[in-house]
Amino acid sequence: MSKQQRESLDAMLRSAPQGFRPQPMEEMRSSFAAMMATMAVPTDVKKTPTTLGDRDAVLVEPEQNARPGTILYFHGGSFLLGSPETAMGLTANLVTRTGYRAISLDYRLAPEHPFPAAIEDALSAYRALLESGIEASSIVFAGDSAGGGLSVTTCLAARSAGLPMPAAVLTFSAGLDHTRSGASVETKADVDPFFTKEGLMYNGSLYMAGQDPHQELLSPVTLADLTGFPPVLMQVGGNEMMLDDSTRFAERARDAGVDVILDFTAGVPHVFQSFVGVLDESDQALDRAALFLKQRLG
Amino acid sequence: MSKQQRESLDAMLRSAPQGFRPQPMEEMRSSFAAMMATMAVPTDVKKTPTTLGDRDAVLVEPEQNARPGTILYFHGGSFLLGSPETAMGLTANLVTRTGYRAISLDYRLAPEHPFPAAIEDALSAYRALLESGIEASSIVFAGDSAGGGLSVTTCLAARSAGLPMPAAVLTFSAGLDHTRSGASVETKADVDPFFTKEGLMYNGSLYMAGQDPHQELLSPVTLADLTGFPPVLMQVGGNEMMLDDSTRFAERARDAGVDVILDFTAGVPHVFQSFVGVLDESDQALDRAALFLKQRLG
Repeated sequence: MSKQQRESLDAMLRSAPQGFRPQPMEEMRSSFAAMMATMAVPTDVKKTPTTLGDRDAVLVEPEQNARPGTILYFHGGSFLLGSPETAMGLTANLVTRTGYRAISLDYRLAPEHPFPAAIEDALSAYRALLESGIEASSIVFAGDSAGGGLSVTTCLAARSAGLPMPAAVLTFSAGLDHTRSGASVETKADVDPFFTKEGLMYNGSLYMAGQDPHQELLSPVTLADLTGFPPVLMQVGGNEMMLDDSTRFAERARDAGVDVILDFTAGVPHVFQSFVGVLDESDQALDRAALFLKQRLG
Repeated sequence: MSKQQRESLDAMLRSAPQGFRPQPMEEMRSSFAAMMATMAVPTDVKKTPTTLGDRDAVLVEPEQNARPGTILYFHGGSFLLGSPETAMGLTANLVTRTGYRAISLDYRLAPEHPFPAAIEDALSAYRALLESGIEASSIVFAGDSAGGGLSVTTCLAARSAGLPMPAAVLTFSAGLDHTRSGASVETKADVDPFFTKEGLMYNGSLYMAGQDPHQELLSPVTLADLTGFPPVLMQVGGNEMMLDDSTRFAERARDAGVDVILDFTAGVPHVFQSFVGVLDESDQALDRAALFLKQRLG
């Protein structure tokens, strides 16, 4: 049953044009938004436009069974694409499964605003939450893909700024390595239905705008000091070139004495949790993520 | 709070004599039983002596909220010590948290019955369950320490015998490497309050009785073909020399396309889940284990 679901999803994704074709940025953004708009979003949440720091954001609250706690959510999209709306399925599914409110940040995107603009916005958002009187121990960072990376680098930036760490970090297929040095960049190239190495390098070049990827905020997977990092749950799929961003980070987190759960699902693509209703593994992974958040905020 | 609990537990364990002293086997067994008898056991389970295959076993059933599903449990104790009773805290906590019944097997112990006696008994028990009409898809294997190893090797033995795989495998600090080749055997020697390398080698020698550790049923961590292995949740602590039994197995499972969750808790000892009520991490880890079992049997 579930093996069939994994295979059907893979076939469906591969029916889209494969390979790398540079496209105008607005076309990339609208295609991405259109794809993400096909993902199921729970209806029993209340969405309210808000601001956090200097940026727009969307407050997502449960319609029932609310409990105290805040998820600061960072959407994916290679730091080029996406918005709180494109990740609304993931965000709202965490909200309905936990009862916590989420605030999903509309951070600045490249190429208009290259590195480190997104991290600056995320840090400002976190600082604004703290300054509003919310305890760090009742905040978790969560994000998918580039937003998973932002969950991690915002912790590093917060530490550098003398701010306390959040209670936990949750990542879905985190992008943590702009050097693209993981073995999976090569070994998973054939099974990844979304990415090519050429595409990853192209997207990264727009975000880095000539800056050196060998720095902790661009490649935390190998370069960040993880001492004192908060507990992490990293979920990742077997069909993705960025697999080793998570596996290597988890190994270094263990070595640094950080509680870390590396939650691997075989045969599924990048950010497979988006496919709720299509793939049982998506629902199950989100349930595990919710339990992790409740254990860390509860 | 929880950091304090981890440190208090460590100090308490270190108040016992440290270092390796060979002792008469009966003394080792009674000391181990006495230590494990201090662990809290849920009272809302029904325990019934039974047999499975040719061995005694204990059926552990929930007093309420029972649901269909069977946990075949293998206790720890280096294949030398222990019984269903010494692991009753772990077993009963899984039962109360899931609603599944467990059958904990009193497999034969070395040195009276060296390798592969325990695996033979475990395989016979599994075969007996299947022959009683229970579907493999409604059975999970679970175990701690040597019993975690047995959960894994019984799958391998079942595959060799042409039997179907169980629905999932759950291990607490699995022992998976009688070659003792993991880096953690050295790097964690100072922080492990239970083991020494000399002790591990001594215990292993009694179990192996001169047999070569370089075979898949003695060192599956590096030698087993994991293709087609069932989904695994491996929980492991940061203060244990056997850490890399789990980390390396998880890596090889990922490479073989197996769903695997590697759930690492820093600063806690071997089979820390036994310390329910003393360590919040124990309860939380057991709750994560229960969710995993329910997702795989549900």
